[in-house]
Amino acid sequence: MIIDIHGHYTTAPKALEDWRNRQVAALKGSASAPRASELKISDDELRESIETNQLKKMQERGSDLTIFSPRASFMAHHIGDFNTSSTWAAICNELCYRVSRLFPDHFIGAAMLPQSPGVKPETCIPELERCVKEYGFVGINLNPDPSGGHWTSPPLTDRHWYPIYEKMVEYDIPAMIHVSTSCNACFHTTGAHYINADTTAFMQLIQGDLFKDFPTLKFVIPHGGGAAPYHWGRYRGLAQEMKKPLLKDHLLNNVFFDTCVYHQPGIDLLTRVIPVDNILFASEMIGAVKGIDPETGHNYDDTKRYIEATLNLSAADRYKVYEGNARRVYPRLDAALKAK
Amino acid sequence: MIIDIHGHYTTAPKALEDWRNRQVAALKGSASAPRASELKISDDELRESIETNQLKKMQERGSDLTIFSPRASFMAHHIGDFNTSSTWAAICNELCYRVSRLFPDHFIGAAMLPQSPGVKPETCIPELERCVKEYGFVGINLNPDPSGGHWTSPPLTDRHWYPIYEKMVEYDIPAMIHVSTSCNACFHTTGAHYINADTTAFMQLIQGDLFKDFPTLKFVIPHGGGAAPYHWGRYRGLAQEMKKPLLKDHLLNNVFFDTCVYHQPGIDLLTRVIPVDNILFASEMIGAVKGIDPETGHNYDDTKRYIEATLNLSAADRYKVYEGNARRVYPRLDAALKAK
Repeated sequence: MIIDIHGHYTTAPKALEDWRNRQVAALKGSASAPRASELKISDDELRESIETNQLKKMQERGSDLTIFSPRASFMAHHIGDFNTSSTWAAICNELCYRVSRLFPDHFIGAAMLPQSPGVKPETCIPELERCVKEYGFVGINLNPDPSGGHWTSPPLTDRHWYPIYEKMVEYDIPAMIHVSTSCNACFHTTGAHYINADTTAFMQLIQGDLFKDFPTLKFVIPHGGGAAPYHWGRYRGLAQEMKKPLLKDHLLNNVFFDTCVYHQPGIDLLTRVIPVDNILFASEMIGAVKGIDPETGHNYDDTKRYIEATLNLSAADRYKVYEGNARRVYPRLDAALKAK
Repeated sequence: MIIDIHGHYTTAPKALEDWRNRQVAALKGSASAPRASELKISDDELRESIETNQLKKMQERGSDLTIFSPRASFMAHHIGDFNTSSTWAAICNELCYRVSRLFPDHFIGAAMLPQSPGVKPETCIPELERCVKEYGFVGINLNPDPSGGHWTSPPLTDRHWYPIYEKMVEYDIPAMIHVSTSCNACFHTTGAHYINADTTAFMQLIQGDLFKDFPTLKFVIPHGGGAAPYHWGRYRGLAQEMKKPLLKDHLLNNVFFDTCVYHQPGIDLLTRVIPVDNILFASEMIGAVKGIDPETGHNYDDTKRYIEATLNLSAADRYKVYEGNARRVYPRLDAALKAK
């Protein structure tokens, strides 16, 4: 089977955005805050939003199951306070859960956390626990910069984040390191902030020794690892100057990259440089880049085509990228599949 | 000949750092500020610092001429105010000028600007003019984030920067977009901040239409363009969604990439994806990554080896990368070479 480990609910019915707009307006004092119960979205609406979008494309392109989390750019952890994020995360996660119940063969959830700038990460644990225990989610998205482009939180190797890591280890769930929308005019959200965050997180992990403290902790760096694979020599060299072990020993038991790289040469580099055990199939469809590449006639984000076409992978390698690695990195996904 | 367009004076005699430390201490009120004239470095000291370092490696590796600017991580525009940066930039630029006079066949200058957070860029023009007119410098380094990792300046496409661009056009000099040290703990200077800045600048240029206002303006994005070539499909797709022209028409008459990518697969990707007319040889030697790659037995930053080994370049292409493009992008360099 083909598992896409990186999908967001970017096509949720408009009522969700309307509700969020009311919540944001209330923060400005121009209206009263809506209650969560005021958001009404029927199963039929959910079904339609998925069947005509993600599921349709999955069937066209030939993937089977998507690890599905709330829309990343809508997390916007910088808005309001912990209560704002808490209500918003609960709503968004529940919708993903409902999608996973409506399409149990095709979607399984990953949680957005109710992060908020300057608020301790442990405040996210109740939502994390609900998502794992009640919703059967198999991973989380962890935002290394809840400020939205101002980078006011400590690096991921700081003890600040340890309560989240302890829960991740306890539940055996990985985190995808994924920022949200940028509120810094310097950083375009999907063209700069996302990619920069991937690169930044990877370098933070080189600098630290986080996996000495958490030998079973697992991170997925999305968008093909940001700039890391392209600059792999730089990163190997910087680690060497810092007297760190070889990257394969220092990080690659714990750090994985997805395949959200939207052209053949990028996937060719990724699969040439990064060991195949560390590459997980993903498209982030329907996401940042929705168009058709005039050079190929196919969607930029139809990443399966690049995986099929690359000369760097054997059939056994492709099995790892499509399925085997996902089952290993997301043990709860593997368990859920085996239970069927 | 082989021109390395990206070298910094990272090996300046220690008196320079001592002087800077006194300047910084004075800002904290713990001492009086040193006068520029208190810095004494002899020609012999300059000669030795170059002959045993950059020049030695240039000769070993087979490059002829380096475009040489002050040490990027030492610019530290976030320290102090405009006067701090002004004095510091003048000192650093003058040292690069002296190096270029001592080794006229091997070094030619590019200017550090006396940028300071929140200060209008036009304040940098007198130093820029001195460097071009008196020192014969052929380019500048422009820091898109003088705050050092807080990104408080407007994007490069903002009119904020236009006075600098007007001077660049007047003198026909390109700018390398190069940040300095990071004072944000999230961003490792050479592993995250540098690469992120390259990616960020490139995306800002996609979003804007700067080259409509300045058709002859030229930027060099260092470090192989950050993440841009690896994610070229993403950038083509984002530009397409923004209804921008194809990147080759939108940016590639004005934007160039250097070859500071420290492994063979990275250079192979760069030379496969980016048109050869937009690639300029560089190593940033002696810089961020000084070690020897155990996988090759050669220095990571000996980028000429990767250019030689890649199958993507013909002999004519290599001429462009090594010399022809540099002469075109740095017309004052070309003029200086022809004058000899």
